Amino acid sequence: MIKLYSYFRSSASYRVRIVLAMKSLPYEYIGIHLLKGGGEQFSPEYRKLNPSALTPTLVASDGAVITQSLAIIDYLEETHPNPSVLPVAAADRAYVRSIALQIACEIHPLNNLRVLSYLKDVVNAAEDTKSAWYAHWVKLGFDAIEATLASDPRTGTFCFGEHPTLADICLVPQVFNAKRMGIALDAYPTIARINDAACALEAFSKAEPSRQPDAF
Amino acid sequence: MIKLYSYFRSSASYRVRIVLAMKSLPYEYIGIHLLKGGGEQFSPEYRKLNPSALTPTLVASDGAVITQSLAIIDYLEETHPNPSVLPVAAADRAYVRSIALQIACEIHPLNNLRVLSYLKDVVNAAEDTKSAWYAHWVKLGFDAIEATLASDPRTGTFCFGEHPTLADICLVPQVFNAKRMGIALDAYPTIARINDAACALEAFSKAEPSRQPDAF
Repeated sequence: MIKLYSYFRSSASYRVRIVLAMKSLPYEYIGIHLLKGGGEQFSPEYRKLNPSALTPTLVASDGAVITQSLAIIDYLEETHPNPSVLPVAAADRAYVRSIALQIACEIHPLNNLRVLSYLKDVVNAAEDTKSAWYAHWVKLGFDAIEATLASDPRTGTFCFGEHPTLADICLVPQVFNAKRMGIALDAYPTIARINDAACALEAFSKAEPSRQPDAF
Repeated sequence: MIKLYSYFRSSASYRVRIVLAMKSLPYEYIGIHLLKGGGEQFSPEYRKLNPSALTPTLVASDGAVITQSLAIIDYLEETHPNPSVLPVAAADRAYVRSIALQIACEIHPLNNLRVLSYLKDVVNAAEDTKSAWYAHWVKLGFDAIEATLASDPRTGTFCFGEHPTLADICLVPQVFNAKRMGIALDAYPTIARINDAACALEAFSKAEPSRQPDAF
């Protein structure tokens, strides 16, 4: 059986949980608490699986160890192609991937736990500087994504047409995170509408942080 | 003909230039200077192509506009599969992608121009705080990648065996950037060896920043 090392609040873990649920793949959930005891991700056992000490890590049924959420999702897509999380045409696949990467490369890496901790502990940033930092990168990213989604004819109920794709799979955890940090979505009506549509799907709902075994 | 909007020093543009050269795809190079006149990436014309105001952007021969380097590379891989930048087996593809993403999601986004500018201009970080920030994320990332490459039996002349893949395509620009910022590679013998092997290939050499039309 697939094993997923996950932290309930980790956006990257949340993405993989959505895909596992969409593809109806059963898996064993192993909680890696990023704060408890200085961070379970730093244990020698976990680092053996994932030298970056980040969540998630997936261990496939055949024992293959895969890190990095987008690599895991591509692996699941290639080994369990139905339902697919990508469109068919190469240019459309690239479009969906580009929205996903705008989140995974331009927003999330700047705002995850270890970066905010470094800002506080090493840069000595005050609480409001840290909040402004978080809000700044969400705003830059969401401004660009909203502009794209509001104008591209490919936008439908979801980021691309009428079926959820990798773009929605990255968008929903980022919106969840932004809301938790008190960011208003008023300036992003298309993002908000698509987020609501995706969250109403069972696979997205099952993957939600509060519904994970390690949620508190 | 393919058009590539690129900045010679942009790591993400560098990745795409390597792939275009590996696949022997001719293209028109359009320089987008990230510093001149406050940044050409912010012009209304460029923002129409790329609302994120980041480089690179690729415009395919049929007019399809694609942003985000990894989405562009997947597009080129799907439309021009030979030579491939990914292994054949799904688990190996995921392994190569995970190394690429460790760079593209965990190192580069924290250390690009706009983040360093924000640290200086908004957070008021001193020059040495900014340098320590840069070095910190390179160290965390390279420590993990070196540990993986030094122990995984799939490591060969390149990150994966005897042919360059997406992992090398992301590694070389990151090493280039780190060297430019004065980071020593002594602690990373495997990374340094693979970087040298890749840089000796014509496709990697042609893509090097100093050899671009907009280099100064």
